[in-house]
Amino acid sequence: MFKNKSIKKLLPICVLSTLALGSWVGTIPNTDAQASEKNHERDNDNTKIKNVIFLIGDGMGVSYTSAYRYLKDDPSTPAVERTEFDKYLVGQQMTYPEDPAQNVTDSASAATAMSAGVKTYNAAIGVDNDKTEVKTVLETAKEKGKATGLVATSEITHATPASFGAHDENRKNMNAIADDYYDELVNGKHKIDVLLGGGSSNFVRPDRNLTEEFQKSGFSYVTNKEQLSKDKNGQVLGLFASGGLPKMIDRTEDIPSLQDMTSSAIQRLNKDKDGFFLMVEGSQVDWAGHDNDIVGAMSEMEDFEKAAKVALDFAKKDKHTLVVITADHSTGGYSIGADGVYNWFGQPIKAAKRTPDFMAAEIAKGADVEKTLKTYIDQNLLALTAQEIQSVKEAAATKKVTDIDNAIETIFNKRSHTGWTTGGHTGEDVPLYAYGPYKERFAGQIDNTDNAKIIFDLLGESKNKK
Amino acid sequence: MFKNKSIKKLLPICVLSTLALGSWVGTIPNTDAQASEKNHERDNDNTKIKNVIFLIGDGMGVSYTSAYRYLKDDPSTPAVERTEFDKYLVGQQMTYPEDPAQNVTDSASAATAMSAGVKTYNAAIGVDNDKTEVKTVLETAKEKGKATGLVATSEITHATPASFGAHDENRKNMNAIADDYYDELVNGKHKIDVLLGGGSSNFVRPDRNLTEEFQKSGFSYVTNKEQLSKDKNGQVLGLFASGGLPKMIDRTEDIPSLQDMTSSAIQRLNKDKDGFFLMVEGSQVDWAGHDNDIVGAMSEMEDFEKAAKVALDFAKKDKHTLVVITADHSTGGYSIGADGVYNWFGQPIKAAKRTPDFMAAEIAKGADVEKTLKTYIDQNLLALTAQEIQSVKEAAATKKVTDIDNAIETIFNKRSHTGWTTGGHTGEDVPLYAYGPYKERFAGQIDNTDNAKIIFDLLGESKNKK
Repeated sequence: MFKNKSIKKLLPICVLSTLALGSWVGTIPNTDAQASEKNHERDNDNTKIKNVIFLIGDGMGVSYTSAYRYLKDDPSTPAVERTEFDKYLVGQQMTYPEDPAQNVTDSASAATAMSAGVKTYNAAIGVDNDKTEVKTVLETAKEKGKATGLVATSEITHATPASFGAHDENRKNMNAIADDYYDELVNGKHKIDVLLGGGSSNFVRPDRNLTEEFQKSGFSYVTNKEQLSKDKNGQVLGLFASGGLPKMIDRTEDIPSLQDMTSSAIQRLNKDKDGFFLMVEGSQVDWAGHDNDIVGAMSEMEDFEKAAKVALDFAKKDKHTLVVITADHSTGGYSIGADGVYNWFGQPIKAAKRTPDFMAAEIAKGADVEKTLKTYIDQNLLALTAQEIQSVKEAAATKKVTDIDNAIETIFNKRSHTGWTTGGHTGEDVPLYAYGPYKERFAGQIDNTDNAKIIFDLLGESKNKK
Repeated sequence: MFKNKSIKKLLPICVLSTLALGSWVGTIPNTDAQASEKNHERDNDNTKIKNVIFLIGDGMGVSYTSAYRYLKDDPSTPAVERTEFDKYLVGQQMTYPEDPAQNVTDSASAATAMSAGVKTYNAAIGVDNDKTEVKTVLETAKEKGKATGLVATSEITHATPASFGAHDENRKNMNAIADDYYDELVNGKHKIDVLLGGGSSNFVRPDRNLTEEFQKSGFSYVTNKEQLSKDKNGQVLGLFASGGLPKMIDRTEDIPSLQDMTSSAIQRLNKDKDGFFLMVEGSQVDWAGHDNDIVGAMSEMEDFEKAAKVALDFAKKDKHTLVVITADHSTGGYSIGADGVYNWFGQPIKAAKRTPDFMAAEIAKGADVEKTLKTYIDQNLLALTAQEIQSVKEAAATKKVTDIDNAIETIFNKRSHTGWTTGGHTGEDVPLYAYGPYKERFAGQIDNTDNAKIIFDLLGESKNKK
């Protein structure tokens, strides 16, 4: 049943580690005396790192973090309120991949850079440019005896979480990635203790039912918010949709939020006396960006901010938890302001009770255009014009859900003065936020590979080849 | 001759300052003991601030700073080389104005926020929302006995420099701003010692010739690079174009670069034993952004980077100079990558020996389209297709220089995969870089008004109302 993957072969090497299990401080190889002294002070300050929570807002470039602040601003106060992220900004990271054909990164290459510290090609999941598997910070954490977890609103086998917990030459192989999550062992144990997200179709398949296999190995398997809430097992597989989860504003009561999943993951992982490593992804900021959908993007920013707050609140109490919040790249060429207008308005976006995708699907299924729009768009915040309604009716006549979706998105883009240049990614640096012990190591202009390098270093691990 | 401006009335207040002239350290009002201790350490470290050099890349959002890095990358090395800016990244700033009609800032409002610490309306030059004049850090520096300077590649009376050295309800009043530079006195002396940039038409006018007035007051007046180089006077007015300077790659030998002007300004100002305040603007990154001209934008990024290096090199030797490098906003909704393509190429941009503006002007004056394009675009780096040449010929047939310019820009945008969403500004946070004593005060997520507040604070000045 267990694949003979190279990670197992190399595990004896871990025994050679000079670090005690459970310690993340160790041999920080700063060469100058000042840094050593600082580390020593920290040891005395009892600020050793026990846990690392690494949060990735997929596609969350600076236009998204800035716009979200302005969207959430309380207009009754003169100054703009800071977001949960703002308080912890320490710098930016470069995102470029090492791909023979593309110099703007995809999520797989960027996540492998952040998980394993190596530049690689677009689509690479935990492998380098030679397709050699590279050890990830999650795997090293597990070697050191820590509990580990992956949480996402995409399929949990999607590029970002996959690059922390699996190895594959192509992100498209999501079934093989799900297999990796089960088959690849560290010290004879499953390497990921908590898996929460979407993508049950990659686990329940004609050839294999991984949900049953995980349960036989002692994991709980949960499929809705109530089950997630009631279950207290330290090891859990939670799959809440066949593919990706619905976006926050489209979710039904039975589907947990990213905040719910993050909170549940931390509670479980924190039982391990040796500490934990947890990666949390706000997956669909990016998906909304690809769709040039500002409503969906801001929905997912809110979902992600709430999850980040859970992590930060835990870290503030715990005092031994490093929290890193960043993005893998930006998406859509999104701009705050467009077409010569010196304004960007959050109100039309707040008017949306569902995403354009949701409304378009209803209309494509035969729902009345005007009724659907007026049901899901608060007319007090965004009073639709006859022309706007007509534009969606004309799109509906094509019967194509994409046309309907685009027509609805256009209303929000125009009303908010949101600009887009692409359905793909863009290459500008992305913000990086950090809280907790050693946060200063992430400060300034860093490279995406530095994230893994610093975390490996804090763990006393200098290798990144499996 | 001297206008009875309120700044003069308030000057006696300055005498009450608890600080000795020439000191920038003073009463840093951090309340916690740790900060006081830090300040004390710094005094012992002999790292008192004597000089402040504040550099603004107008319109230089994160897409510009990132793209410029990729443009300058040495492809023969595996990693991307860092720019002069990258090494000193400390955070980002928010740019929103306080304007009744617009929530994306213009350069005047942003510069007033950075110079005087107050949010104000778009177009405001050193005045608040009530159109009351607000004291700027340049004026406070002069009160403290320091030398002061403004350097820009725009008219020296343009919005950004004007907001440091003048007061006007509207940025358009560039003649009145030039008058302010001469008429407004601090302690009976002209408040700006070094003025270098473009805009002679605002100084030499039917109603007044300010160049003569400045000379009568002991200033040198220079109009080309050689004169600038030879003159060593501590007070100088240098105007090298009627309006804005040509962009770097379009400049003739007689026009100084931003690097030349910055170097000359520092040499002059550094003669003052009490230190100096200097504002340097890379003005035309923004102008190129408005024009959606990636060639011009990268030309001006290079001009600005070289000026920043001069400031940083000086500060490294001097050890008592704080250098802050930032932007006022971003422009154009510029994205690295567009139209679904996961690439952005610097090579087509490097092929340009002149800006599209320059080439379009030649063509509009009757120059042959194909010959002009092939003269100014290196065919080894960007081999023009027949279709591309034809697109410019069609534009030339309209005889409109704007059409010709747009046609040429489109070639560079398409070849490099550069996206744009607007001819105006955009509202995302912009990067902030700092070097020298107290650089850490600018770290993290700050507001544009914090720049002035910190500098006032370092100067021992808590007031910002004139």
